[in-house]
Amino acid sequence: MRNNLEQLILAMYEKDIIKFGKFTLKSGKESFVYVDLRTTISYPDIYRDICDILSDYIQKQQLKFDRLLGIPYSALTFASSIAYKDNVPMLLKRKEAKAYGTKKLLEGEYHANDVCLLIEDVVTTGGSSIESLEVLAEHNIKVTDLVCLVDRQGSAKQNLQAHHCTLHSMITLTQILDILLSHNKINHTQYQQAVTVITED
Amino acid sequence: MRNNLEQLILAMYEKDIIKFGKFTLKSGKESFVYVDLRTTISYPDIYRDICDILSDYIQKQQLKFDRLLGIPYSALTFASSIAYKDNVPMLLKRKEAKAYGTKKLLEGEYHANDVCLLIEDVVTTGGSSIESLEVLAEHNIKVTDLVCLVDRQGSAKQNLQAHHCTLHSMITLTQILDILLSHNKINHTQYQQAVTVITED
Repeated sequence: MRNNLEQLILAMYEKDIIKFGKFTLKSGKESFVYVDLRTTISYPDIYRDICDILSDYIQKQQLKFDRLLGIPYSALTFASSIAYKDNVPMLLKRKEAKAYGTKKLLEGEYHANDVCLLIEDVVTTGGSSIESLEVLAEHNIKVTDLVCLVDRQGSAKQNLQAHHCTLHSMITLTQILDILLSHNKINHTQYQQAVTVITED
Repeated sequence: MRNNLEQLILAMYEKDIIKFGKFTLKSGKESFVYVDLRTTISYPDIYRDICDILSDYIQKQQLKFDRLLGIPYSALTFASSIAYKDNVPMLLKRKEAKAYGTKKLLEGEYHANDVCLLIEDVVTTGGSSIESLEVLAEHNIKVTDLVCLVDRQGSAKQNLQAHHCTLHSMITLTQILDILLSHNKINHTQYQQAVTVITED
């Protein structure tokens, strides 16, 4: 975890991107903390920080890939900015097949055995990442790495590993909670409630 | 039309982004030329040129807006790159309502009476642009201008004007055909076939 991540987390808390309350996750599970990156698009400073953090990581780790794919919608916006900034080719996976025209779920140009780097906003179990990985596999495109901003510390790491894909997260949910607690943004009760759900996984 | 647009059009023709043949458009109408910007994401030079041309136009015209919205999927990727590059806040309209979580068709943060600038890849009748404009109107967000790369010269300009929205296109389909003909990329038969459909509108 890097220093500018701490500032980003505090900014995200101020803008209600990290929320406390009672939420139902995609998995049906209840959670006391929700990281909702969908509104980041409206806060240029936060949006650019996220794109820069992901882009810097990809470059410093020297991840090798032929195509970049951001899972819609938040990570699709991040990937589009990274592609522009770093001059790299993208692919795009629609959330639904197109009803007219050339009817493709996967958009873009590619070759067999291309390696595609996945970008995700938040991972919990890695379900939607694995779904994308499987669509790419059907097109003979390999996925060896996935870079995400937040790992909610569900079973994503192990689940992706079972698909020979390494999870790279910029920050974990526990690290986010630690930062917010140390800055007195949340109290010990909120911290414990939120942490309990993580450790139950 | 600017000079670098000519080079962009030739590059798009080489990469099969501008295709000749027989195609059925979204409207059900037949066409002999298809401008398929969906694969531009895989060609960084073309992708960056498009984003830069749109961004330069927005700045030179000094278009006033509070939020930027790119209609999915191609123009969503362009808007994401422009937002990153020019430090402007975005909104995002999903193609479908989300089935879980906070269930919104429109994502992002905004205020009543905000002005949103729409970005589109190709317009023909302006149907999907007007659909987006209406969703925004339901949220008390105004749309006064739409910037697109290609105007297929259907009825988009008039249809958008009826919604008090000005269409700004970087290039028309006729201009594209003129460029390709002058560079001997298409013959007179292909030119005439393609032009006839435009003038029929």
